[in-house]
Amino acid sequence: MTSVTSKAALGLDFGTLSVRALLVRLDGVELAEKTVEYPHGQILDQLPGTGESLPPDFALQHPQDWLESAALATRSALQQAEIAPEEVVGIGVDFTSCSMLPAKSDGTPLCLVPEFAGEKYAWPKLWKHHAAKSQTDRINEVARERSEDWLRRYGGVIGLEWFFPKVLETLQNAKSAYDATEVWLEAGDWLVWQLVGGEADSLPRSTCQAGYKAMWNAESDYPSPEYFAAVDPEFENVLDKMPGRMCAPGTCAGELTAEQADRLGLPAGIPVSAAIIDAHAAVPGVGAADAEALVMVMGTSSCHMLNAKQEKFVPGVAGIVKDGILPGFYGYETGQAAVGDAFDWIRRLVGHRDYQNLAEKSRALPPGAEGVACMDWFNGCRTPLMDGHLTGQFTGLTLNHGPEHLYRAAMEASAYGLRWIVDLLREHDVPVTRLIASGGLPHHNRDMVQIYANVLGETIEIHPSRQGPALGAAILGALAASDRTGFSSVQEAVEAMTSAAGTNILVEPEAEPTKQYIPLYQQYREEAERLSQK
Amino acid sequence: MTSVTSKAALGLDFGTLSVRALLVRLDGVELAEKTVEYPHGQILDQLPGTGESLPPDFALQHPQDWLESAALATRSALQQAEIAPEEVVGIGVDFTSCSMLPAKSDGTPLCLVPEFAGEKYAWPKLWKHHAAKSQTDRINEVARERSEDWLRRYGGVIGLEWFFPKVLETLQNAKSAYDATEVWLEAGDWLVWQLVGGEADSLPRSTCQAGYKAMWNAESDYPSPEYFAAVDPEFENVLDKMPGRMCAPGTCAGELTAEQADRLGLPAGIPVSAAIIDAHAAVPGVGAADAEALVMVMGTSSCHMLNAKQEKFVPGVAGIVKDGILPGFYGYETGQAAVGDAFDWIRRLVGHRDYQNLAEKSRALPPGAEGVACMDWFNGCRTPLMDGHLTGQFTGLTLNHGPEHLYRAAMEASAYGLRWIVDLLREHDVPVTRLIASGGLPHHNRDMVQIYANVLGETIEIHPSRQGPALGAAILGALAASDRTGFSSVQEAVEAMTSAAGTNILVEPEAEPTKQYIPLYQQYREEAERLSQK
Repeated sequence: MTSVTSKAALGLDFGTLSVRALLVRLDGVELAEKTVEYPHGQILDQLPGTGESLPPDFALQHPQDWLESAALATRSALQQAEIAPEEVVGIGVDFTSCSMLPAKSDGTPLCLVPEFAGEKYAWPKLWKHHAAKSQTDRINEVARERSEDWLRRYGGVIGLEWFFPKVLETLQNAKSAYDATEVWLEAGDWLVWQLVGGEADSLPRSTCQAGYKAMWNAESDYPSPEYFAAVDPEFENVLDKMPGRMCAPGTCAGELTAEQADRLGLPAGIPVSAAIIDAHAAVPGVGAADAEALVMVMGTSSCHMLNAKQEKFVPGVAGIVKDGILPGFYGYETGQAAVGDAFDWIRRLVGHRDYQNLAEKSRALPPGAEGVACMDWFNGCRTPLMDGHLTGQFTGLTLNHGPEHLYRAAMEASAYGLRWIVDLLREHDVPVTRLIASGGLPHHNRDMVQIYANVLGETIEIHPSRQGPALGAAILGALAASDRTGFSSVQEAVEAMTSAAGTNILVEPEAEPTKQYIPLYQQYREEAERLSQK
Repeated sequence: MTSVTSKAALGLDFGTLSVRALLVRLDGVELAEKTVEYPHGQILDQLPGTGESLPPDFALQHPQDWLESAALATRSALQQAEIAPEEVVGIGVDFTSCSMLPAKSDGTPLCLVPEFAGEKYAWPKLWKHHAAKSQTDRINEVARERSEDWLRRYGGVIGLEWFFPKVLETLQNAKSAYDATEVWLEAGDWLVWQLVGGEADSLPRSTCQAGYKAMWNAESDYPSPEYFAAVDPEFENVLDKMPGRMCAPGTCAGELTAEQADRLGLPAGIPVSAAIIDAHAAVPGVGAADAEALVMVMGTSSCHMLNAKQEKFVPGVAGIVKDGILPGFYGYETGQAAVGDAFDWIRRLVGHRDYQNLAEKSRALPPGAEGVACMDWFNGCRTPLMDGHLTGQFTGLTLNHGPEHLYRAAMEASAYGLRWIVDLLREHDVPVTRLIASGGLPHHNRDMVQIYANVLGETIEIHPSRQGPALGAAILGALAASDRTGFSSVQEAVEAMTSAAGTNILVEPEAEPTKQYIPLYQQYREEAERLSQK
């Protein structure tokens, strides 16, 4: 053991419902982990304060929740780890994306300005906020009309959940809120800005979030003001409301301010990495420093990340960003819009308090759920159709079916959706040779992983740590503090800090179900094809 | 008041889960009603005695339940009515159909012969027993090949739930049970045979049940032995196992035996009417003695009965039988295979103990259930597709939908299904000028009736008595005892005995929802068309 082993990095992993603080020693030993739920959770039904009913496709968050829950989680993790705060030498932040908000130039979220507290369009929009449908259509339409070159990096379609549709939605529905906004930014960037302080003009923006969610590219920058003007004349100035400097994850965005240090229970001056999208953080977090490993981060939704040596334009792949995940590779982002969320929705729909009964009964069912088929587009379809308007369904229902059939069919649909993505990548000569499942879901729901293995007919590896993204964030924090940690490359940091996690759990495909799933997957693909053409 | 008002008739209404005994004075005043559930209910999961797991499309009943529950219900109704048993002058019986069983020539159900108690194919099959799929296909295929003339009276298709498919199923799956059977018969006929006694050769068979469920016709009798032999060589002798004499409902099948009189708590010798199908009994029961009134009997499934002055062959109409419902008319039978059953399945699927919460929340939803659409073929489609293989579905689902959306969409689908039937009849020049809802469901579920009215854009009348079929049975019992009651025609009996029930409750269509349902109904029809061609 060298002296680095007394030092630790803090990973702050901001999910949909909670933030997780993970303290990891530089040799990879996890010292402590604490998850704290956001007091307001997802804001889906009523606007806080006014009680206004929100439209069904709204999903907001409260910005104070992020800071307060992170402080609680960090203080609690420090206590649990029994280390001196001074041993924490770097901080990394990953965040759901595109979760974003309008702010004033001093960093105050617009929704906390009393005048706008009652304006729902002034609140932070969670990644799954789906109300910008018409704006997404317009943004795509104009991009196609103008043959915008950046479009092909996004599989030819901009998603409903991305940055500019959400900005345009506020412009078109609440002009005064848009006008009062001085800074539009990702929630992850806002969080890092809060930690390191400084003027709006130099606020650190993540190249990862900008590259995947805001059509930004190191060579061509954001789309042009002409493009934005063509979308909506009043949208021409949107880039004026996006001050800051671009920072790659793993580079130092700044140092922890005294005020935030006090809040977190840490010394001031700790280097903080630029933010990374939560799913993307899992790639270093599970130790996948090479190309060809699909890292599947499974939670409420799933993001499937892949590094490749070549850039291939794959229709329907949400983002292909150079150095977007790890330096030296083209990062491919794909995803499924409702996974844990879908299972949880079904569990609530059928009035069960937990999964025990559903899991036991669905496990006993044969492949194909005795005729019940599901299309799991309950939150739209991300990859490859990139269409938030699409909806889910259950077919083949009879009076003899029960809740377990819905649950089983939904897990199968989720597996078909993954296989579709893998097939698509391979059909476009993007190699996928390993499948690594990460996040909490694969640990809680081993049945689902077995179904995935059977539907794909391939081994699924489950990363033993449940802290994939949080560990990735900590690794990037350690890298941002290279002068304190001595790490000089991502590969070096990944290798050192993931070695202690243990070997991956292998879930092998079973011969008979694998065979039975072949025609069932075909049926899913045919139904998906039919529905996408409606 | 004349002296007839001291006399009463007993209607025994055998439903899917229970039997109802209704005592009605000859002037229509309901004296007492008592419902008693069958101890074994529907036998869906396990064969009594052996505990053998039943296939999912099995639905059996226990023959002792019928007699025992009827005795309890009758005795209890007599007590409640506070009349002397001697004042009961006629008995009518209606029964679900086609519920049927194999028996010995002394009337013993085959499943009560010890040797066959453990043979599931020896048990009475409930109307909704759906295991005779391949037999139904074969029966239809041979009928079409041979261009059997009787086929067009059934819309060109024999249903999965009918008599001969269920017999053939036993022949092909349990030859020894088939061989040991001396009498195949409808459960309603078996019940009447038990009440009146006598030899198998003269057992009273209902022309209504035979006409609608066993391809029988007064002019052409049953299909020929040549036809049955073409279906399966060993099926040639099936008519040898169907002894008896044909009796129209409302004619006297015989007189109550001393043994059964003792059981029911009535004097021996009371005339008993031939059985009638439960749904068909509702037509006289709701006072519809004229043509052009669609009488909708809504319960677990719905049967929609119509009398017309002319015979039109309507594709998909399950049965057109001369004098099949009331003398002097052509009786049209149509139906929906899962109505109350479907709602109840949904209620259980979503884990609710009662309908209160579902009803309240679904009532607040706009037409179209916020994008959720249902195809209510959870028990196949009866009219007009006559296909028990078809299945149900929910489409348009998102994470924002709840149980109330499923329930609302299912009620709407049920209404679309009814409108389809009404449209079809009118398109084939069969007039429908009144819609009369009967059965328990329209009283329990007024929301559903309102949705029906809105989808059809027409007034729905709800018959005030909840005893439609039971009252119809009692009327037919009074008619069978014409020498004691003085009734000389069905019309006379219907008029006398339904006058006391009060006026129908009118549920009027609402303008705005009616308009909104027009395109939604179109979508349902298009989806039904697509699914039926898969």
